[in-house]
Amino acid sequence: MREETDLVAPPRGPEHDADPIETPGFVEAVAGAIERRDVATLKTIVADLHETDLARLLEALPAPDRPAMIELLGADFDFTALTELDETVRLQILEELPRQTVVEGMRDLESDDAVYILEDLDDAEKQAILADLPIPERAALQRSLDYPEESAGRRMQTEFIALPPFWTVGQALDYIGETEGLPDVFFEVFVVDPSYRLDGSVPLDRLLRTKRGVKLGEVVTPDRHVVKATDDQENVARVFERYNLISAPVVDEGGRLVGVLTIDDIVDVIQEEADEDLKALGGVAGDEELSDSFWYIAKSRFSWLLLNLIAANIASFVISLFEDELHRMVALAVLMPIVASQGGNAGTQTMTVAVRALATRELRPSNARRVVARELLVGLFNGVVFAVIMAVVVFARFGIADLGFVIGLAMIINLVAAALGGILIPLLLDRLKVDPAVSSGPFVTTVTDVVGFFAFLGIASLWF
Amino acid sequence: MREETDLVAPPRGPEHDADPIETPGFVEAVAGAIERRDVATLKTIVADLHETDLARLLEALPAPDRPAMIELLGADFDFTALTELDETVRLQILEELPRQTVVEGMRDLESDDAVYILEDLDDAEKQAILADLPIPERAALQRSLDYPEESAGRRMQTEFIALPPFWTVGQALDYIGETEGLPDVFFEVFVVDPSYRLDGSVPLDRLLRTKRGVKLGEVVTPDRHVVKATDDQENVARVFERYNLISAPVVDEGGRLVGVLTIDDIVDVIQEEADEDLKALGGVAGDEELSDSFWYIAKSRFSWLLLNLIAANIASFVISLFEDELHRMVALAVLMPIVASQGGNAGTQTMTVAVRALATRELRPSNARRVVARELLVGLFNGVVFAVIMAVVVFARFGIADLGFVIGLAMIINLVAAALGGILIPLLLDRLKVDPAVSSGPFVTTVTDVVGFFAFLGIASLWF
Repeated sequence: MREETDLVAPPRGPEHDADPIETPGFVEAVAGAIERRDVATLKTIVADLHETDLARLLEALPAPDRPAMIELLGADFDFTALTELDETVRLQILEELPRQTVVEGMRDLESDDAVYILEDLDDAEKQAILADLPIPERAALQRSLDYPEESAGRRMQTEFIALPPFWTVGQALDYIGETEGLPDVFFEVFVVDPSYRLDGSVPLDRLLRTKRGVKLGEVVTPDRHVVKATDDQENVARVFERYNLISAPVVDEGGRLVGVLTIDDIVDVIQEEADEDLKALGGVAGDEELSDSFWYIAKSRFSWLLLNLIAANIASFVISLFEDELHRMVALAVLMPIVASQGGNAGTQTMTVAVRALATRELRPSNARRVVARELLVGLFNGVVFAVIMAVVVFARFGIADLGFVIGLAMIINLVAAALGGILIPLLLDRLKVDPAVSSGPFVTTVTDVVGFFAFLGIASLWF
Repeated sequence: MREETDLVAPPRGPEHDADPIETPGFVEAVAGAIERRDVATLKTIVADLHETDLARLLEALPAPDRPAMIELLGADFDFTALTELDETVRLQILEELPRQTVVEGMRDLESDDAVYILEDLDDAEKQAILADLPIPERAALQRSLDYPEESAGRRMQTEFIALPPFWTVGQALDYIGETEGLPDVFFEVFVVDPSYRLDGSVPLDRLLRTKRGVKLGEVVTPDRHVVKATDDQENVARVFERYNLISAPVVDEGGRLVGVLTIDDIVDVIQEEADEDLKALGGVAGDEELSDSFWYIAKSRFSWLLLNLIAANIASFVISLFEDELHRMVALAVLMPIVASQGGNAGTQTMTVAVRALATRELRPSNARRVVARELLVGLFNGVVFAVIMAVVVFARFGIADLGFVIGLAMIINLVAAALGGILIPLLLDRLKVDPAVSSGPFVTTVTDVVGFFAFLGIASLWF
């Protein structure tokens, strides 16, 4: 297999599989160019890279090379790339770059990208950068930053095309064709009254298919899904997803158009939220990133493990209530983890489904009862099946028929408890406005451990 | 708080929070109308519903009412709603509807929606429906269905605008304005040669901002991200996400344009894939849906639990090797689950991060070594901290200093094993082309259970 790799110009063209960043030697070649301060080579490389790949290149470079590369590139570095970086890396770069470079770079950004970069900086730094920006840009950014974190107002783009209803389609088309400084990409024109209150929108393709003499007011359709700037981004993402939206207007409390949200921003939110839920269920902080430092990760994982240690000690305390039985019959000690572990896994299954369905708003008051009943039945059914299996295994292993009966009964009790805990705990936490993805796990396994040990050892102590 | 609820016309307007389906009494009112065969009322309701809400209404109705409603509505029922249904519900409806109704409904669909509905039907049913469709539509659907499941060819829309490079922008605009039967929504025109080989595309907004006399060939830009029809939908979704694409052309092996993929289809894929990973990590089948029957769920959960039961029995076997020690010192039985459980949770943390990073392609050969080293360090660090905590707790509880030392040592060993298992098992499975999200769990917990019990009881047997 012969493969020639041109280290400077990464492979281009329709094969999107060809990934410049993963090409052996590519990152090293860039690092070398930075070291030699070889601006010409750097510019050639960067000209060929998509902003996302530029971000991935920055992440792959040694930390000191990152700001160095940006400074060497000057105006050829597209600051949009910063929005694609892991937060840790972005903050490191912004800290080390001279403020003037940051301000220059920010000026070329769309408002949503600028806000995304600014919002994680500390207040002093944020204000210093804003102060260096021209007044109109500063005002627009400040307005977005005044909305709460993770709100639609933070994610929206404040560049959009808004026209009055008495304009004709022809006027609109000419305006779009001739005006400089319109947004880079747009999917519709919005129709607003003189105070910028939103009438609705006309998608670009409809604009093109309507006769030039028709007034916008006649072809405008009211947007069914108008986003309030204060809406939480997760709720907005659900609406985009549910109704397959490409973009949606954002209005302030007065119903005035203040921005537009597009699906590409929302995709990031959907991805982020799914990511957070998945990590939370695994006991990892939602913002943990692959580029985080050892120390940050160790600390963030620690708190979850500490919670689990407390849960495990509670379970251990339950076991210690039966020391006499364990001493009389060591087989109980050998078998008890099976009951607890089977319950833990069944509980996790139910909890996973419940947490996910709550996150996607599929689990709602109207169907909660049916889902609880079904989970209970599944727990009972699987409990009985595993009871029979374990009864046979235990009898075969220890030759004590009664022990098989005891473990079977404990298994049924624990799998029913697991089903109930797995669904009721997330539902309860959700009702209490606590994120069930983050908090359900330790409660559910505490329930299944405690019930598992208590049922098995308790029944054994009564029986033998 | 007075609230008047009009059961027939659900609340509309900018408040997207108002959810007709969850309005108390709404579903019952619809069911009543179906029972009375009150077509007029049904039509009024449906006219106001988005296809997604129509699907949610169908899911909320009792099963027999679903096909009944569709038949009553006739041509007023938008078959697009079927694409928004849970698979189980969709198949139930398609089975019970007369074939003629299905064929009529399918004719109005975009190709990607039609394929989505057809692909889950059994072959005989699929062919019967295709046979009843007009030849051009049948051929287009058949071509999509010939691509592998979960490929770009299955998800693409075969309706698009493709023009030759010698056309002017003005000609293109006039063509769009005057031609009937163009796609409902489109974001660009594609430029192709006479054999439909793709030159590139011109986004609508650029078309509008270019002088009418300019030739398309002069403003076309080659698409950097061209999708092959045989590409896996998950890989395509990563590309859309990574490069913030709104749409991408789909080509066949010969580089000929055969369709277009848009972000709204891809959002569903992203959501599906995140969903599958999350469920897989929780031990639930990726296709489990909230509307699935008790029996289906019980069976699908069973196999995972059976795997776990085997793992638990292996761990139990390890414990039985130390029956003498357990008999001599019941405290060992009381404490051993703590070591195992702490390891299981630490292993799950690492595994969650690894599985997610593999799914999003963030974890790659170029950074794997660094991540493994970091996880190992985190395991060692947290192991030492928890060793100290447990040593103190155990000494306080049992008054045996040696026992504290033994549990501490076992804790360190198990947390290091957890870190290694949590990262190396997903990496290995990925290398073997097995989905790490589905298969890592049982392996990782087997490792932490076995190492936990063996280390703790083994060290104890040497020590005491």
